[in-house]
Amino acid sequence: MKQVDLNADAGESFGRWRLGNDEELFPLITSANLATGFHAGDPRVMLKSVRLAKKHGVAVGAHPGFPDLVGFGRRDLAASPEEVYTDVLYQVGALSAFLKLEGLPLHHVKPHGALYLRMLKDKETALAVAQAVKDYDEELPLVLLGNTLMEEAAKEVGVRYVREAFPDRAYLSDGRLAPRSMEGALIKDPKRAAERAVEMVLEGEVEALDGGRVKVEAETLCIHGDNPEAVAIARAVREALEAHGVQIRPF
Amino acid sequence: MKQVDLNADAGESFGRWRLGNDEELFPLITSANLATGFHAGDPRVMLKSVRLAKKHGVAVGAHPGFPDLVGFGRRDLAASPEEVYTDVLYQVGALSAFLKLEGLPLHHVKPHGALYLRMLKDKETALAVAQAVKDYDEELPLVLLGNTLMEEAAKEVGVRYVREAFPDRAYLSDGRLAPRSMEGALIKDPKRAAERAVEMVLEGEVEALDGGRVKVEAETLCIHGDNPEAVAIARAVREALEAHGVQIRPF
Amino acid sequence: MKQVDLNADAGESFGRWRLGNDEELFPLITSANLATGFHAGDPRVMLKSVRLAKKHGVAVGAHPGFPDLVGFGRRDLAASPEEVYTDVLYQVGALSAFLKLEGLPLHHVKPHGALYLRMLKDKETALAVAQAVKDYDEELPLVLLGNTLMEEAAKEVGVRYVREAFPDRAYLSDGRLAPRSMEGALIKDPKRAAERAVEMVLEGEVEALDGGRVKVEAETLCIHGDNPEAVAIARAVREALEAHGVQIRPF
Amino acid sequence: MKQVDLNADAGESFGRWRLGNDEELFPLITSANLATGFHAGDPRVMLKSVRLAKKHGVAVGAHPGFPDLVGFGRRDLAASPEEVYTDVLYQVGALSAFLKLEGLPLHHVKPHGALYLRMLKDKETALAVAQAVKDYDEELPLVLLGNTLMEEAAKEVGVRYVREAFPDRAYLSDGRLAPRSMEGALIKDPKRAAERAVEMVLEGEVEALDGGRVKVEAETLCIHGDNPEAVAIARAVREALEAHGVQIRPF
Repeated sequence: MKQVDLNADAGESFGRWRLGNDEELFPLITSANLATGFHAGDPRVMLKSVRLAKKHGVAVGAHPGFPDLVGFGRRDLAASPEEVYTDVLYQVGALSAFLKLEGLPLHHVKPHGALYLRMLKDKETALAVAQAVKDYDEELPLVLLGNTLMEEAAKEVGVRYVREAFPDRAYLSDGRLAPRSMEGALIKDPKRAAERAVEMVLEGEVEALDGGRVKVEAETLCIHGDNPEAVAIARAVREALEAHGVQIRPF
Repeated sequence: MKQVDLNADAGESFGRWRLGNDEELFPLITSANLATGFHAGDPRVMLKSVRLAKKHGVAVGAHPGFPDLVGFGRRDLAASPEEVYTDVLYQVGALSAFLKLEGLPLHHVKPHGALYLRMLKDKETALAVAQAVKDYDEELPLVLLGNTLMEEAAKEVGVRYVREAFPDRAYLSDGRLAPRSMEGALIKDPKRAAERAVEMVLEGEVEALDGGRVKVEAETLCIHGDNPEAVAIARAVREALEAHGVQIRPF
Repeated sequence: MKQVDLNADAGESFGRWRLGNDEELFPLITSANLATGFHAGDPRVMLKSVRLAKKHGVAVGAHPGFPDLVGFGRRDLAASPEEVYTDVLYQVGALSAFLKLEGLPLHHVKPHGALYLRMLKDKETALAVAQAVKDYDEELPLVLLGNTLMEEAAKEVGVRYVREAFPDRAYLSDGRLAPRSMEGALIKDPKRAAERAVEMVLEGEVEALDGGRVKVEAETLCIHGDNPEAVAIARAVREALEAHGVQIRPF
Repeated sequence: MKQVDLNADAGESFGRWRLGNDEELFPLITSANLATGFHAGDPRVMLKSVRLAKKHGVAVGAHPGFPDLVGFGRRDLAASPEEVYTDVLYQVGALSAFLKLEGLPLHHVKPHGALYLRMLKDKETALAVAQAVKDYDEELPLVLLGNTLMEEAAKEVGVRYVREAFPDRAYLSDGRLAPRSMEGALIKDPKRAAERAVEMVLEGEVEALDGGRVKVEAETLCIHGDNPEAVAIARAVREALEAHGVQIRPF
């Protein structure tokens, strides 16, 4: 029987400001990437999110980002490998305190936003994150995009890792995600995202935006949490996968 | 044989800015309270400080503070008990990541600056810190000032705790520290600080600034790390204690 | 003919996070207090808010707060008078750049949240804010609560000032606002808030929560911008005042 | 008679942390670039620095940087042109408040660190800064490096500008500064820096690190303020220029 994890970014509120719809999303997903304070997610939000995850049986991962609240961690920052390494450890440790409190294990680490994207183009950054995760805990998996510098770095470092795919993003035939600026790069129709999720899991490939088909490794599927359709997409993806006999559970 | 711990605040640099003289201080002390990023101490500083402590066999404690970089955590902040509780957990967890990396245990927690002082006058704050420490780890001791709301709260919560005394600060006969604004409140002469340290440890009391003598509980003696005389005071205190046969070691 | 200003806090979004409903609120008010970056309101938000105010003919004031993003400037902070003085100047100057750009004058300064409340109980803080406003511009008015330390300090410093009243907050018979924790302290019914606004402007007094009536100085009426009923209350207040022949315009 | 300005970055302390030696440096320079809070320089530091500049007759410029305290504004950040534009305006406005207080004009704007460097390689960033300076004040000059994208953008926008040269940095024959990683890129000998300063001003060219000579536009000479030799270099440069009959004064 095939199985897959559904992950979503969560815990992205901060202080007085609310973001996302974690209460509706958590019953539909199997793992959550919780913001860890540098780009979103203050300590109160982190504790509440951990408790919400516990209530719904959602596995909790850390979602460390660049120290850029005003930019929501979405702006590339030329942090040195040492800065990346120590910033990731700091954030992973901070989240771990709340997990320890609630008796939950740290399930994985998935870098956020511009840090994730920097790992795709800068090997030193990818190595620094991979090393931080491995040094923190030999058994802890890093969530990454397969067939990229991220995976290369993860192998080199010897960290455990899990590959994710994006049902709501178009791919190019060379395996890359289509840039958001391209026509058709974002898939907003829940039904179509769900069909792609099924293809990704059962066939290991989907149609490419520039023609032909592209192989996609999908041990976990990412649902983007901060757009209005997130809940509808998560529900459609989940139902379609279950209808095709795929078991939805944490990796 | 009598024994006592010498603790000092350390790791108080931040980014481009240097503060303190940890390299000279660490060979003289037995435990360090490391800043955890909210009032000082970025992740690079934290890792370096943990490694420096390891090299010198110094026990490492967390020194969480209010989120106030520009005020160095020295301004009272009306944080709610929930805010204090979660901020302390976040910071303790963050430091723990670097300790885990280096294979060191977290030795204690000592609140910093205005957070420490708020615990002396606001029971809710004292309870929140004590609870955070206990919930993080039943065995983890909180460093506090004896015969105060801090100790009362620690007892109520059931957290382990250790009482500290200040050889370079004058006391009032009622047991309180003399306010810094009082003439004679700060003891800058290393020789005199050393004599007081010996009295504190061997006799359990010192002369009060307002006359008479005052009982002082001293399982650990605090050396203030961010003033120019810190190293000279630490050395004088250490030598005087050793000359009186007191063993200097972590509590 | 009687006249009054309607002011509201605005521009309280930050980075990725949205707050308030400025687009609907601005057509109803005559002056806006814009957050200036320390507790809310990044530079993009500030420029957009200034332009929105310009479009609707709303007079723009600065709304400086404590440097506490995660606490939204609502936690009392023991900032020194020098810190308050310089923090206010910094924030007022920052907003002024955007006003200069759009050819608008700076209309007033109204301290935010915990800074405002600290001025009610700490004379040094009130003096520091008043002095900052006067030193920045002799003609610039400070919005404050009448018959308080704030007004006393404003008089002492010789800064221009304007007194505000709160149609959606209950008063005590001694002139103070009823604490939010008291039953009936918040008036959520737009109709009732509107009636009180009319009384405040036409009669200079309203019913007190603890019995009797209380004098209220009302050169400007404050509509709280960050609650869901803000737009409904602003509309009701505006319509009721106009129905009673009161002219709504900036002070 | 030839004349030149000597500028230095200053006001780079923050909160509890001290940096630089402004008291010794200000008597030697004619213009100061004051940090404006995003990468260094809190409001107290800004006011003190403005007053120190006034005392020594030093012209004050704004030194806006990326919002990156922990990185001291030295890490490239992929801020959008809109973000750069509004961040510069915010910071320039903030400094202007302190100048207004002391009755001083804002003399110039010089971008700091990674923002300056980004203007050398990203035209959009260069245009955004230039536009912000011009929109703030038509007469306000931008300090930049000549024969670069910065100058190109300044011309395109029509902002006033002034070209600076670096007596303590080696140049390549194509006009660029030699990267700091190159052998000989930094000139630490005050005597040699002084000789180069004289050549720059009197001959408009200096020896290139890779052979031959290179033209250098030098309306103002930059003395790096945060290294230990800063004061010695400033003194040597000043004395050498005066010995050659060059008048040292603000541009």
